[in-house]
Amino acid sequence: MSNSPLKIGVAGLGTVGAGVVKLLRQQASLVSLRSGRDIAITAVSARDPSKDRGFNLADLKWSPDPLELAIDKNVDVVVELIGGEDGIAKELVETAIANGKHVVTANKALIAHHGTELARSAEIANVIIAFEAAVAGGVPIVKALREGLVGNKVLRIFGILNGTCNYILSEMRRTRKEFGLMLKEAQDLGYAEADPALDIDGVDTAHKLAILTSLAFGCEVNFKAVHIEGISRISPLDIEFADELGYRIKLLGISRQTEFGIEQRVHPCMVPIDAPIAHIEDVFNAVIVEGDFVGTTMYEGRGAGEGPTASAVVADIIDIARDKKLNTFTIPAIKLKKLKNVPISEHVGSYYVRFMVLDKPGVFATIASALKDNNVSMEAVLQRGRSQNEAVPVVLTTHSTAEYSMLATLGLIEKNEAVVEPPCMIRIESF
Amino acid sequence: MSNSPLKIGVAGLGTVGAGVVKLLRQQASLVSLRSGRDIAITAVSARDPSKDRGFNLADLKWSPDPLELAIDKNVDVVVELIGGEDGIAKELVETAIANGKHVVTANKALIAHHGTELARSAEIANVIIAFEAAVAGGVPIVKALREGLVGNKVLRIFGILNGTCNYILSEMRRTRKEFGLMLKEAQDLGYAEADPALDIDGVDTAHKLAILTSLAFGCEVNFKAVHIEGISRISPLDIEFADELGYRIKLLGISRQTEFGIEQRVHPCMVPIDAPIAHIEDVFNAVIVEGDFVGTTMYEGRGAGEGPTASAVVADIIDIARDKKLNTFTIPAIKLKKLKNVPISEHVGSYYVRFMVLDKPGVFATIASALKDNNVSMEAVLQRGRSQNEAVPVVLTTHSTAEYSMLATLGLIEKNEAVVEPPCMIRIESF
Repeated sequence: MSNSPLKIGVAGLGTVGAGVVKLLRQQASLVSLRSGRDIAITAVSARDPSKDRGFNLADLKWSPDPLELAIDKNVDVVVELIGGEDGIAKELVETAIANGKHVVTANKALIAHHGTELARSAEIANVIIAFEAAVAGGVPIVKALREGLVGNKVLRIFGILNGTCNYILSEMRRTRKEFGLMLKEAQDLGYAEADPALDIDGVDTAHKLAILTSLAFGCEVNFKAVHIEGISRISPLDIEFADELGYRIKLLGISRQTEFGIEQRVHPCMVPIDAPIAHIEDVFNAVIVEGDFVGTTMYEGRGAGEGPTASAVVADIIDIARDKKLNTFTIPAIKLKKLKNVPISEHVGSYYVRFMVLDKPGVFATIASALKDNNVSMEAVLQRGRSQNEAVPVVLTTHSTAEYSMLATLGLIEKNEAVVEPPCMIRIESF
Repeated sequence: MSNSPLKIGVAGLGTVGAGVVKLLRQQASLVSLRSGRDIAITAVSARDPSKDRGFNLADLKWSPDPLELAIDKNVDVVVELIGGEDGIAKELVETAIANGKHVVTANKALIAHHGTELARSAEIANVIIAFEAAVAGGVPIVKALREGLVGNKVLRIFGILNGTCNYILSEMRRTRKEFGLMLKEAQDLGYAEADPALDIDGVDTAHKLAILTSLAFGCEVNFKAVHIEGISRISPLDIEFADELGYRIKLLGISRQTEFGIEQRVHPCMVPIDAPIAHIEDVFNAVIVEGDFVGTTMYEGRGAGEGPTASAVVADIIDIARDKKLNTFTIPAIKLKKLKNVPISEHVGSYYVRFMVLDKPGVFATIASALKDNNVSMEAVLQRGRSQNEAVPVVLTTHSTAEYSMLATLGLIEKNEAVVEPPCMIRIESF
């Protein structure tokens, strides 16, 4: 192992970049003791050099163009904290690899879309591309999959991967208020972006899930194969019924090996109240890995923010400082399998469905015959309130059934004119 | 990195040893793909070669004497699964290191008692001694501390580290039955040993805590500094009061940096019902690490058993196969600090105390004045039932106070003749 300082170039000095600089400065002696060598930031790149970031950048080489870091002889590792699946972030990473620099990134969109190619390029160039910070913030889940659980065949991996959605769902449960209000609150607190679509529509979760899937199952990253649903259709009624039925509602990313291939899906789930994941609240993330030898293990922590993300980025940097050479997705990128994707219509599980129904004769008969015609076995039915003029919620839960049967059932029920809005269907996840 | 097979000698073929052999055989091609080389068991040692372990040992070199593995030219890594803090296990590990072999062990007692010296010897001999399996079974917590969270100063680390105790406490809560009955049940299910003292007295938890403390705070392993209390004094009454007060009772190992040094303690704790650790049930283990940058992270899984422990042992073997060289306790063993131990009497926190009291005048006055004399501020007081002839429980909880004040208070209260048995004091842990 080299004893000379490892030279770092940081591209992007937003929240995470600033956190990385702070950590490496504040903890310099500890990091050096633990790494066996010094870690020195030698260059930075960001748009505005004059912005006050709480630390002095005068002693650092400043480049307005991040690509300069990728060709700087005084940089061993390019830390890409710009973000975005394409554009300058991608160009920077590619250029860094081509110039024999290691890359550490927190960019989930980039890895979800281009992870396989980038891993191949990095392995050919004999450099590292590391992205612990891209999934579940400070929680070392990438390390757990590549190393700690490496002896296991993974059977299922799932988790709460987006703090914004988990915060909103937690608050909806506490306050029984509408989604829109809680989203506004999350935005006011800085937990949600001004444009929250990436979070609440499930896309951010899907980026992370695609990365976890590749690590867990040894297949190429395939973001496009992820079935994605967001949380905006969840109503306080569903939260209330979940409580009554012994569940909590969480937005999960789930990836599972079935006899037909790999199922990758992101959607709100009913999880049993006594499952540990039901108690992951607010902005916390959690990932559960089920391995054939280890059984069920869970990893929890803050999924975003300056400190947690900087912690993960620095862990990757220290791995490089310690001269650790590991394939990006555990096995050589060239050997990653093409993912055999199981479409969501083939999913088999239990379901919760809420209908908004006018109190007219025949609705229950329609429901009953639709279930019967599709061989869907009902577990419970609940009706809340009664009104002659307004629609009231009717909820049913099913035993295990195929999604295509469920959809056919809902199609039949929806045709009844007493059903006044599209049903809200939430998958029940068993553990 | 070498491409030749890594040669393993396994000493001890009990549950864990058998699991390691099974995993390495069943998962051979996966392990080889992920490690970049084959891992070959070349020799084994156990007392009875003829015992049926569910696999064929005919193709392996068999030694009745484990020390033969330590000098076998055909062994690169000695896997010590014999157990015990001294005796043959220690001799084997020392001999292996002296002969330039790497060591992987699941032996918490050995590392808790001799970890610092063994680490020094290993670092001088330029070999690895790895013990992921010694703490929390399959949960990769050693790796999280040495690598995933390496950029953080740890503020506190604590956890449920003994599955037997957690099972008994979980069952006591569910059934409201006595400790003795639940211990018997745990023994019948094979979760507790015939001699359960190591588990229920907290010693096993203390072994693991001493190891975590060293990893987290960069100090020499100091098992003797751990304050240890077991769970045998917990009664169903305490479980019931905990419920009423919004807590669950867990046996925790806790290690914390205070302004005076490091506090290491193992004892039953009241944990708030809404804390994730309150929901770790049955034989599951969980470790929580609080870091200055990462915040709070939690790691959960099965803490014992064939599969989980084998998973951890194999992860250590694969680290060696991948040529990863890391100091045993993150920093060089020679640089580990002497632990500055904070005695339990200096602990500051909240307390739950249950007295068994005869319904006589003056008891409450005694309690009130004892609290006042020692400046202990009461938070709540509960009395359950009323009887003229039998003692009834009186429970009080306090605000934050020093343990020595608490003990002085209890000393005064105990003197009242209406208090018929020593009070049961349980520390309340805040998160």
